[in-house]
Amino acid sequence: VKATPRTQESVAISGDGEHWVLLNASPEIRQQIEGFPPLHPKKPRHSPIAALVLTNGDLDHCLGLLSLRESHPLTVFATERVRRGFTEGNVLYRTLERFDDQVTWRALKLGREDELASGLTVEAAPVPGKLPIHLEGALSPDAEDSVGLRIRETRTGTVLAYFSGVGGVSSAVTQALQDAEAVFFDGTFWSEDELPALGLGEKRARDMAHAPVGGPDGSLAALGALRASRRILIHLNNTNPLLREDSPERAQVAARGWEVAYDGMEMSL
Amino acid sequence: VKATPRTQESVAISGDGEHWVLLNASPEIRQQIEGFPPLHPKKPRHSPIAALVLTNGDLDHCLGLLSLRESHPLTVFATERVRRGFTEGNVLYRTLERFDDQVTWRALKLGREDELASGLTVEAAPVPGKLPIHLEGALSPDAEDSVGLRIRETRTGTVLAYFSGVGGVSSAVTQALQDAEAVFFDGTFWSEDELPALGLGEKRARDMAHAPVGGPDGSLAALGALRASRRILIHLNNTNPLLREDSPERAQVAARGWEVAYDGMEMSL
Repeated sequence: VKATPRTQESVAISGDGEHWVLLNASPEIRQQIEGFPPLHPKKPRHSPIAALVLTNGDLDHCLGLLSLRESHPLTVFATERVRRGFTEGNVLYRTLERFDDQVTWRALKLGREDELASGLTVEAAPVPGKLPIHLEGALSPDAEDSVGLRIRETRTGTVLAYFSGVGGVSSAVTQALQDAEAVFFDGTFWSEDELPALGLGEKRARDMAHAPVGGPDGSLAALGALRASRRILIHLNNTNPLLREDSPERAQVAARGWEVAYDGMEMSL
Repeated sequence: VKATPRTQESVAISGDGEHWVLLNASPEIRQQIEGFPPLHPKKPRHSPIAALVLTNGDLDHCLGLLSLRESHPLTVFATERVRRGFTEGNVLYRTLERFDDQVTWRALKLGREDELASGLTVEAAPVPGKLPIHLEGALSPDAEDSVGLRIRETRTGTVLAYFSGVGGVSSAVTQALQDAEAVFFDGTFWSEDELPALGLGEKRARDMAHAPVGGPDGSLAALGALRASRRILIHLNNTNPLLREDSPERAQVAARGWEVAYDGMEMSL
């Protein structure tokens, strides 16, 4: 198979090259930090990671927080829903409450722009989503369970849109991407029935709050008119044919100007 | 610095080369599984991992379980204390309760030998230990919070001793190691005041239930008389001078027949 293995999706951004913000915290966060020298500590108990932003409560987006338990104080941006989903009824979270201010939570509100770090702001945009699997049945769904992010550099106004985990291309989603210079978008599944077709359970893509990329109703078709100079699919499931560099699906997205993220991918905007 | 980076400690054992047992589940378990082809799935939703054994509730020994949530049913051996500490009051654990028998728990009892997998048995031995940090103050300490393991091949009687997280070399510990052909032993800290001496907090090694390796009261001195042909220090903290290949401490343990574990280390007994 012509495909490169990837760790679980995580993105690091910086406005000044010194202070960094992680968009979500994957279970493989240590390996990812080790693989990117700008994120290495400069001295004991130091970290260039100024903040993290969580876009939903999925373990593949949050579990890495627990791996940062020994390093240094953390600032974490998330909606109240995502914060409560991760901190309440979770005895493991006590490992992040060992000293005062070990974690400082900053609340994201839909549609509000907040200072993030090093000349960047963050705005949470509503996306069709769902509760993480481990909270299904324990809470009622809420609009703040899943968000997309608009990161803006205040000096230039450049916008990066990060939409990982999108259950459908709503008009709010399209609007939030409209002026972005770079778009990271949910590429979990190529097709609606990707898992059942491989005998891997019954769940369809939208049951899992992931709009499939391909097909007439897919996100590729729905997002055709973006002006972004960089359009990148992230969070690909290991069943996604886009991972094969020589697949027709890969050729199809490339022809429309979309890239597929890989470990170590870097860009400047 | 002449030292090789290591992932967090995890050991895989097998009696037949086909069915494997993981001793503890580190947060970096995915990277570790990917790095060792015998642990790769042979088909979708398959895994050669027949079982896992948890020796205490520390997150660096248990968090990896949550990374195995999408693969296949798991069989996990642990004391009742360790099982309850990880499963009760932990909403994240619901991700391992998505279908019947996703996790089958098998209770370890101190001093009892149980069938493990592929011609191997496991016996939990008492070790001086402590509750994991996130349960401190929430539960009273108990003898079953931390155990060492004696793994025995039934056909040959060969014993492998795995003692990661040992607060002191008690007579029960010495006795459990006596007939082992290979010993894996807690090498977290070289000295009692390793962290305070580097300005990294106030905690001494024994406060964290790790007997230091060096010094007149260290585990190296206390374990001098072992007959094991392989003696391996594992679970080294990144402050431990044993990680430096050219350190006098490393020379000292080598002179006494001890090795320092590294990623990818393999042996046959």
